[in-house]
This record gives sequence, C-alpha cells and structure tokens, in this order.
Amino acid sequence: MSKQTSDLSDLFYETLKDIYFAEKQILSALPEMAENAQSDELRTAFETHRDETRGQIERLDQIFELIGKPTQEKTCVAIVGMIDESKEVMEDFADTNALDAGILAAAQAVEHYEISRYGTLKTWAQQLGLTDVVGLLEDTLMEEKKTDELLSKLASADVNAKAA
Amino acid sequence: MSKQTSDLSDLFYETLKDIYFAEKQILSALPEMAENAQSDELRTAFETHRDETRGQIERLDQIFELIGKPTQEKTCVAIVGMIDESKEVMEDFADTNALDAGILAAAQAVEHYEISRYGTLKTWAQQLGLTDVVGLLEDTLMEEKKTDELLSKLASADVNAKAA
Repeated sequence: MSKQTSDLSDLFYETLKDIYFAEKQILSALPEMAENAQSDELRTAFETHRDETRGQIERLDQIFELIGKPTQEKTCVAIVGMIDESKEVMEDFADTNALDAGILAAAQAVEHYEISRYGTLKTWAQQLGLTDVVGLLEDTLMEEKKTDELLSKLASADVNAKAA
Repeated sequence: MSKQTSDLSDLFYETLKDIYFAEKQILSALPEMAENAQSDELRTAFETHRDETRGQIERLDQIFELIGKPTQEKTCVAIVGMIDESKEVMEDFADTNALDAGILAAAQAVEHYEISRYGTLKTWAQQLGLTDVVGLLEDTLMEEKKTDELLSKLASADVNAKAA
C-alpha cells in the first residue's frame, strides 16, 4: 500500500468509528423521539427509521470486517450535541403546537449529518477500490436520503395543515 | 397571534439564535481551514466561503430586525463539535496526503448542518407568512448548497487525481 493510500485508509477507519458511534446514539434516541411525536405519521417514520438504523449498524459491522480492522466506536461530539438539542426541544416545547416541528427539525439535522458522513465515506471507499464497501455505504446513503425526504414532506404537510 | 402561530414563532426565534451562533463559529474557524488546505482550489473555496459567511451573518441580523426581536446567540453544541472534529483532523493528519480529504469532509459536515437548519427556518418562515424573511433565508440556502456542491466536486477531483 502506498503512503497516500495508507493515509486515506487511516482517515476512512477513523471516520467509520465516528459514524458507528453516531448510529448507536441515534438508535438509542429514536424511541424517545417516536414517543414524543404528536402525529401518527411522524411516530411511524421514527419507528421505521429505528429498524433501518439497526440494519445500518449491521452494515457498518460488515465494513469493519471487510477492511479487516476491529469494530470500534469513537465519540462524535457533533451527534451528541444534536441529540441533546432534540431533547431540549422536546422539553421546551412539550405542551405546544410546535412540538412536532421541533422534533422534525432536530431529526433532519441528524439525517443531514449522516448523509454528509456516508457521502464522504463512499467517495473514499471508491478511491480505495473497496467495491463491496461502496455498495454497503450506498445502500445506507439511499435510506438516509429517503428518510430526509420523508421528513421534509411531513414538515411541509404540517405547515399546510396549520396554515389551513 | 394564535397560540399555534405563537409557539412556532418562539421555535423560529430559538433556532435563529442557534444558527447565528453557528455562523459566527464558522467565520472564526474558516481562516484556519484555509491555511491548512494543501490545494489552491480548496483554500480559495474556504476564502470565498468566509466572505459569504459574513454576508450570511448580515442577513441574520436583518431577520432579527424584521421579526422585531433582539439579536442573540445561543450555544450550538453540534457546531462546536463539528469544528472541534475539523481541528482534530488537521492535527492528526497534518503531514499526510489525506489532509485535504479530511478538511473537506469536516467542512461538508458543517455545510450539511447549515443546509438542514436554513431549510427548516425557511419552511417555518413560510408558515409564519414572513415573506421578506423567506427571501433572505432562500439566498443563504442557495449559497450553502452551492458551497456543498463545490466541495463535493473538489472531493471527487481529489479522488481522481490520487487514483491516477
């Protein structure tokens, strides 16, 4: 392995540990978000995404195996911050009509972070010639984008309902 | 103002304070990222975005004025975490060929967070009937998306150059 490839390979591994930690935090946070959601559609969206997140963690397990490195987590302060913000909004807007809007926004911030991370990892996996890994990352990336689109649709629907 | 509108208006204001803090942190972080960038194109991208960020802060100042509320910042732990991660990658990969890839990835995480926040604020401004505010948010949202696209292009170019 050239020095260049080795450096990128290290960066890939570090970032993989970061998103692995993030996914586990998200998995823990989703039930509370589902519980607090006022609309059935939003609750269902979070429940579906919790199941997807389990699958995404399994894909990460496979990637660690494919690159032959130990499965490890690395604290990702950004995701901890975003989850804390979601808890804050659930507390501060608990008995208001803006609760769903607030939870939705917090969830979309998380989704965008993940989309950015998986997009980056996929680009690097392509460069490193890790074809199987690219496929796994692509599957997750598509799920995250679909979730974000669904949340955007719910946010607009919420808007329309309220404006009516 | 109905109770419903008043709740969303509060949520809008809280989120505005959050992105105001975030933009100021980003403005402070960009010069170091530009300094550390190895490629001229990446450095120029950060310098251009620093100028844009100044304009985005001015737009936020205008929005505070338009909604008739005091300009305030609210600590956003997520953005602090992302900026810390960018500093970590600049340190850990300082003398490696993966430095630009690492800085690029960190910057894209920040961009995605902003895109999510501005998208949310725009949806809420539409619901609140704040037409002038929608326009200002839309201008910034377009700039953030263009920056993200440019960074994606640079990331792929970097990949192609290295793969060659």
